[in-house]
Amino acid sequence: MLTPELPFERAARERLGEPLFRYMQGLPADAFGDENDANHLALRRFRLLPRVLQGNESIDTHITLMNQTWAAPIGVGAFAGDRIFHEEGLLPIARACKRLQLPLVISEETVTPLAQIGAEYDRCWLQLRAAGEVARIKALIDQAAESHFKAIVLTVLAPVHPVAGLQPGGFSVGDALKQRGWHTIGGTQPGVEPLPAFPVWRWQQIDEVATHCADRGLPLLLKGVLHHDDAAPAAAHGVSGLIASNIGLRQSARWVTPVDQLPDLQAVTRLPLLLDGGIRSGSDAVVARCLGATLSLSVRPVITALVTGGETAVFDLLSGWINAISAISHWCGVSDMGALNGSFVTEARD
Amino acid sequence: MLTPELPFERAARERLGEPLFRYMQGLPADAFGDENDANHLALRRFRLLPRVLQGNESIDTHITLMNQTWAAPIGVGAFAGDRIFHEEGLLPIARACKRLQLPLVISEETVTPLAQIGAEYDRCWLQLRAAGEVARIKALIDQAAESHFKAIVLTVLAPVHPVAGLQPGGFSVGDALKQRGWHTIGGTQPGVEPLPAFPVWRWQQIDEVATHCADRGLPLLLKGVLHHDDAAPAAAHGVSGLIASNIGLRQSARWVTPVDQLPDLQAVTRLPLLLDGGIRSGSDAVVARCLGATLSLSVRPVITALVTGGETAVFDLLSGWINAISAISHWCGVSDMGALNGSFVTEARD
Amino acid sequence: MLTPELPFERAARERLGEPLFRYMQGLPADAFGDENDANHLALRRFRLLPRVLQGNESIDTHITLMNQTWAAPIGVGAFAGDRIFHEEGLLPIARACKRLQLPLVISEETVTPLAQIGAEYDRCWLQLRAAGEVARIKALIDQAAESHFKAIVLTVLAPVHPVAGLQPGGFSVGDALKQRGWHTIGGTQPGVEPLPAFPVWRWQQIDEVATHCADRGLPLLLKGVLHHDDAAPAAAHGVSGLIASNIGLRQSARWVTPVDQLPDLQAVTRLPLLLDGGIRSGSDAVVARCLGATLSLSVRPVITALVTGGETAVFDLLSGWINAISAISHWCGVSDMGALNGSFVTEARD
Amino acid sequence: MLTPELPFERAARERLGEPLFRYMQGLPADAFGDENDANHLALRRFRLLPRVLQGNESIDTHITLMNQTWAAPIGVGAFAGDRIFHEEGLLPIARACKRLQLPLVISEETVTPLAQIGAEYDRCWLQLRAAGEVARIKALIDQAAESHFKAIVLTVLAPVHPVAGLQPGGFSVGDALKQRGWHTIGGTQPGVEPLPAFPVWRWQQIDEVATHCADRGLPLLLKGVLHHDDAAPAAAHGVSGLIASNIGLRQSARWVTPVDQLPDLQAVTRLPLLLDGGIRSGSDAVVARCLGATLSLSVRPVITALVTGGETAVFDLLSGWINAISAISHWCGVSDMGALNGSFVTEARD
Repeated sequence: MLTPELPFERAARERLGEPLFRYMQGLPADAFGDENDANHLALRRFRLLPRVLQGNESIDTHITLMNQTWAAPIGVGAFAGDRIFHEEGLLPIARACKRLQLPLVISEETVTPLAQIGAEYDRCWLQLRAAGEVARIKALIDQAAESHFKAIVLTVLAPVHPVAGLQPGGFSVGDALKQRGWHTIGGTQPGVEPLPAFPVWRWQQIDEVATHCADRGLPLLLKGVLHHDDAAPAAAHGVSGLIASNIGLRQSARWVTPVDQLPDLQAVTRLPLLLDGGIRSGSDAVVARCLGATLSLSVRPVITALVTGGETAVFDLLSGWINAISAISHWCGVSDMGALNGSFVTEARD
Repeated sequence: MLTPELPFERAARERLGEPLFRYMQGLPADAFGDENDANHLALRRFRLLPRVLQGNESIDTHITLMNQTWAAPIGVGAFAGDRIFHEEGLLPIARACKRLQLPLVISEETVTPLAQIGAEYDRCWLQLRAAGEVARIKALIDQAAESHFKAIVLTVLAPVHPVAGLQPGGFSVGDALKQRGWHTIGGTQPGVEPLPAFPVWRWQQIDEVATHCADRGLPLLLKGVLHHDDAAPAAAHGVSGLIASNIGLRQSARWVTPVDQLPDLQAVTRLPLLLDGGIRSGSDAVVARCLGATLSLSVRPVITALVTGGETAVFDLLSGWINAISAISHWCGVSDMGALNGSFVTEARD
Repeated sequence: MLTPELPFERAARERLGEPLFRYMQGLPADAFGDENDANHLALRRFRLLPRVLQGNESIDTHITLMNQTWAAPIGVGAFAGDRIFHEEGLLPIARACKRLQLPLVISEETVTPLAQIGAEYDRCWLQLRAAGEVARIKALIDQAAESHFKAIVLTVLAPVHPVAGLQPGGFSVGDALKQRGWHTIGGTQPGVEPLPAFPVWRWQQIDEVATHCADRGLPLLLKGVLHHDDAAPAAAHGVSGLIASNIGLRQSARWVTPVDQLPDLQAVTRLPLLLDGGIRSGSDAVVARCLGATLSLSVRPVITALVTGGETAVFDLLSGWINAISAISHWCGVSDMGALNGSFVTEARD
Repeated sequence: MLTPELPFERAARERLGEPLFRYMQGLPADAFGDENDANHLALRRFRLLPRVLQGNESIDTHITLMNQTWAAPIGVGAFAGDRIFHEEGLLPIARACKRLQLPLVISEETVTPLAQIGAEYDRCWLQLRAAGEVARIKALIDQAAESHFKAIVLTVLAPVHPVAGLQPGGFSVGDALKQRGWHTIGGTQPGVEPLPAFPVWRWQQIDEVATHCADRGLPLLLKGVLHHDDAAPAAAHGVSGLIASNIGLRQSARWVTPVDQLPDLQAVTRLPLLLDGGIRSGSDAVVARCLGATLSLSVRPVITALVTGGETAVFDLLSGWINAISAISHWCGVSDMGALNGSFVTEARD
């Protein structure tokens, strides 16, 4: 089974040029050119098993996550250097997400200022790298709170590169930002803020950040949790949700897929699980929901739409997925997202 | 394993033009261009295990289904907007089916009038969407009875689209019919009759329809049953047969395949099971029979033949399949279709 | 895993022209153009697990089968209409087999006369279709005995086509012979002798043939046995060996592979088992031997060699395979073919 | 899953010309042109399962093997006829290995003299074919000791070809050396020293060689052990390590892969296991380490780099791999190579 091309992929490739397109694709040093998207294929291994004659009277795609309500179990994940991809940065995405009421995760490596994003859409989440001084993180959380952000995401898997030369797709987004003299949300000078690879954070730092988040009324999610022994203690450390993610297979093509890890994670925690990576259709989001993911995050298809058609294309992509979630779920015989569970999927044998 | 091209596929593509060809192929929004036909591949997973020296003295491909006898365990499934594909609509198919004595399912979205079809071949089945008013269905059943139809099929999986924009292959057959000002069997004005997506029918509506069918002496089949919990109660509600079908993977590419569900369905019901989708050769029909399908329905190969060669091509396709069913079954060492069972197939390991 | 091209395949295709090449390939009506050779792939599923430091002092590839000794566990299988492929028919193959002391199976649909073949090489086997009058078979067995043939093979799987139009590759070798006015060994007039498809033979006819073979001092093999219930009674009916074969997947692409059936067959009979189909290298023959096949028969690679290079190419192909059997077995740490068994193969996981 | 191209592969192909490139690729007679690298794919079946928040304070890639310390769990394997590939032979590789402190295995079929190699880098290992007179081996071990070599490798799988005509890629490196009049380390005249295929060595010869190695202070490794019954007695015969290897699938494409055999080997011996074949990235080496291989050897990627860019390219390749080992291991949450184990890998399901 080969990974199919995304819609607009060729157009985006032309618009971006090869180096930046490769960065977006994010193939790491241990991937080879013809690598498939294992994250997507892991979802494609499952098929939907619908029910009929269920008498369902409507279909509601809304979900509730950490006391927040969203229009559908999908959201837009974080990416670095937004202004490189579009002259308005990710603001067109923010507008589309606002119109649709979907969560939007903002990377601390975003060029567009935090306050400007918050002014455009007051329901964003800020994603920070779990490395370096906790004080730096706290200060950024304070800014996020002031800009009406609604959650904090801490990337705990591979937050910093310990050696040079392993940039996804062989493109340094940090260098590109420096050349342009552009600051990022988390940076004190042009480019991406350098953080030390060592020592790696422990749960002790998570405790500190979680307390600070609680003070600001912001729930905290950990991104990059794949092993059940890392999921089990999270709730006791003040974490409100886990994002199963291999960071888009950008640091290595060989990480396990979050889809394959969902059962292990569910077995040890009652925290809401989000899925990051591999979503390419509304059906994928329904499958993810059936497999236990409260909400799924997508990045590459959204950037591809942004690059080729701005807000309109992003809106069309995401509203198309919501429509598909609506139809597929309805045809599965349910009335709301809470009714989707493992009984609606089977592992494909082809 | 990739899905091979059908015979005549390229010729049909040229004749129909891209939009209509894509509609026939029926790729849904969650399929990608290089999607394989999972329904066909599910059949290809099985290999035939023949017996020798069985002393069989003849081979008879006839089968009996709901007290009706057919020449072979194959039939032609329903499709919409027949006149768009051929100036005579599906009449050439009706003639070929009459010559061969095979069942032909007529969609309520057919342009050719019911009476005209019945006059051409008095052994057709009418397929209706299980949605909206039961009274509408009853009236159509009455018409079918008058036109000498021999069975009623109710589509219970995804009978109506709850949202726009998800047409198979991105082509709206309804709009195409409206533009031409063409009525369909089930329509009260040009185009496909719009039906409400909600509320979805329950068994209560099936009871009503089954009673009406019984009054008219017509057996009732449900199409789109894939889950065993939906198959189990069917007999008690007056249903005479179930068609395992994912509607040709046209609404979603991600439904389970009917072949994979046959064992689950057989485990809970003694109703005859029909298989819809994926048949591309006489061997496929023999495999389906071995897996428990009384009869298999095929659509795309038949339309492809209709488009490129009319009645002659349809007749050649179907009689070729009957010949193959005859030869393969004979070589399996049996004398009739009733002798085919699970001992003649093994799941392939390649 | 795709089936690779055979050596010389392109050259043979040019030399033979499309219709005859397709006949040699033998794709049946239920195969599609891109079909893989399932027989070959079934062998490729296994990998060899060698032993080291075994102190083996020599390597002997000879095998004994039904009291006859052969140079290696390979032989050449039967094919129809030899003169169509080469002006000397299969005589160049007979010469190569004689030089190498390998068995050669002669089809009753061979154009070259039996006596002429026997004069060239006195260790051939005659292959007859198990259909029609036993008297005809007996007479041909008598001729084979007179021409110094050494065994009789009866094809019991699909010996006759019950319907027309299912020729492998869409080419009728019978018509081609008739056009040329050529007789075959088993024919009473130009072309292939027509035999009735019904009634299919029973073990009773095998008893008669086996008795006749015993009278002439010829061992009898049954070709096309795939089901264990057909293998179990064979020894009691005077059969000396079984050829696991699906007739090269020429009548149907969907038969089980002989390799997959070897374990089932071995479980019920002590008769020697031969493997027919899918051999493309010396390693394949070693794998087959490890899986329980006393000897493997190959046809298509040999015809391909015959067409492109005559006796020399056939000799080079077969002696190359013997060399490979020699080296691979030696590297497995054995001194003779009898030492090869299931401990030297594992099922591949890739 | 297809095997991807190596970096520089096309450039190397142009530089070397087809025959020599095919020799390097080493496709044996039973491989077909489109063969995948089963050794590499066996590694790709595994995915890495990282831990987070482990508080690791540094990352050290050094490993200890037979009381020797190396910079990382990778080394360069042996190949024949080095001067054919580069005018300085393998000296550029020796220099890169010295700079990085990685082991380098020297084939006895190397053209560059032993003393010259030892003068360049005093940490090489000498690889000898376990065939012919033990006295010859002893003499070569003496030379190795004098040239400051640090270990002896004995190839016990397929050390000699019993028949002609089975050269990997159809290229005779021996003939190529003879034509140039070049001697090799193990040769007494131009070309590769001919050794008898029979009798194959037994453990008795290993005992003799091991004793001689011990006298010279050199640890002895056996290369080509794949069967657990061959691994079990090794320690008792004075062997210090085993190299799981199918000789790069050069003699046959059908040998089991060393990766698949690692569990069987680990179950019966405590000797350090090295993995030979299929390494194409730092991740592969990490996976191999997790699967129980103390160190992995790579050849083809190194030759490819040598041919296209000399010492610089070899250094860049190997230091790139060390960097990747460093980053991937760090992201797995460990501080040193000893912490990597089976809990960090899962078998992929795609």
